Amino acid sequence: MHEGSEVVVLRYGHRPGRDDRMTTHVGLTARALGADRVILPENASGPAETIRDITDRFGGPFEVELRADQKAIVRKFEGTVVHLTMYGEPIQTVESSIREAFRRPADDLLVVVGGEKVPWALYERADFNVGVTNQPHSEVAGLAVFLDRLFEGAELDREWVDADRRVVPMATGKRVIDAEAEVETEKAGKDGASGHGGGDGDR
Amino acid sequence: MHEGSEVVVLRYGHRPGRDDRMTTHVGLTARALGADRVILPENASGPAETIRDITDRFGGPFEVELRADQKAIVRKFEGTVVHLTMYGEPIQTVESSIREAFRRPADDLLVVVGGEKVPWALYERADFNVGVTNQPHSEVAGLAVFLDRLFEGAELDREWVDADRRVVPMATGKRVIDAEAEVETEKAGKDGASGHGGGDGDR
Repeated sequence: MHEGSEVVVLRYGHRPGRDDRMTTHVGLTARALGADRVILPENASGPAETIRDITDRFGGPFEVELRADQKAIVRKFEGTVVHLTMYGEPIQTVESSIREAFRRPADDLLVVVGGEKVPWALYERADFNVGVTNQPHSEVAGLAVFLDRLFEGAELDREWVDADRRVVPMATGKRVIDAEAEVETEKAGKDGASGHGGGDGDR
Repeated sequence: MHEGSEVVVLRYGHRPGRDDRMTTHVGLTARALGADRVILPENASGPAETIRDITDRFGGPFEVELRADQKAIVRKFEGTVVHLTMYGEPIQTVESSIREAFRRPADDLLVVVGGEKVPWALYERADFNVGVTNQPHSEVAGLAVFLDRLFEGAELDREWVDADRRVVPMATGKRVIDAEAEVETEKAGKDGASGHGGGDGDR
């Protein structure tokens, strides 16, 4: 979402079926909160399709890649590797160092979000093992807080390109605009999904 | 996690089986990021059990309630009601007003996190309909960013009471201490779960 360096989110490990929704939410959160790209394990084609579909409708740029070589991606990454884990150093103590590393010209950032087991080598390769609290909660929550702090809120003002539709913020109600024709399709007075989990991939 | 007013997270709607993990992650995120209590729909007993188990092991105080009367809870809530929705006003523009309302003595805060369909009355009853971006992503991500901003990061320094175990932050490695006996059980050099999604309820 910014010039120069790229922020890539890597979902490490995926169990088809069981992890579909979590992996989809990792990808959609990466997109919504300012990452440039998400890399999913090769067996996560369902979540990849959902994330691409959301990007087609709500805009980008945002890339989704399916890759088999998760270990090699981490090992060979040219840039700073952050591994989100409840065992890591508190985000509030390391975030400024991470931002500093990231601001160096052409130093990309790889944010690794563990699913199932992650190899010990990941802890060792990571430049930063980071805990958003040292409590067990959710990899999606950890990623969201991490990105919001990395970008210091700037991701919330991002402009989207090539969107079919755009949500117009409202105090009460739902307003969605056709971004191409600028035709407004307002929905009000109807029950409906609350929204943030709208791209579940299991609708 | 703070004196005076209480922050309550309400998970609106739950489909057993299908939503178990998301509802569990909503509850664990509420706990880890500073809420005092989560209210789940009556049919979410599995997630409730997992969240209570994590609280028993990693500390509190944090309460989990199962309630059938979601609509009535919202309608009758004495305090400020925030509804997280991608159709709402941007968090960055309303967060200071929400903090101000919350700081009034004895003004509790109810944070409603939609799952499946939410009734139109919720949009109308809410004092604030809030979007963490106006993009579809994840209710867990929205809740996490909302709480981190509400508490302005203070939730990350929270102390936990009555924990059996405590994670000691490390730059590389995993260290878990028996919080009662202060006996250290260090794990290093082994592969293992990355952590943040450790309380999945479907291990």
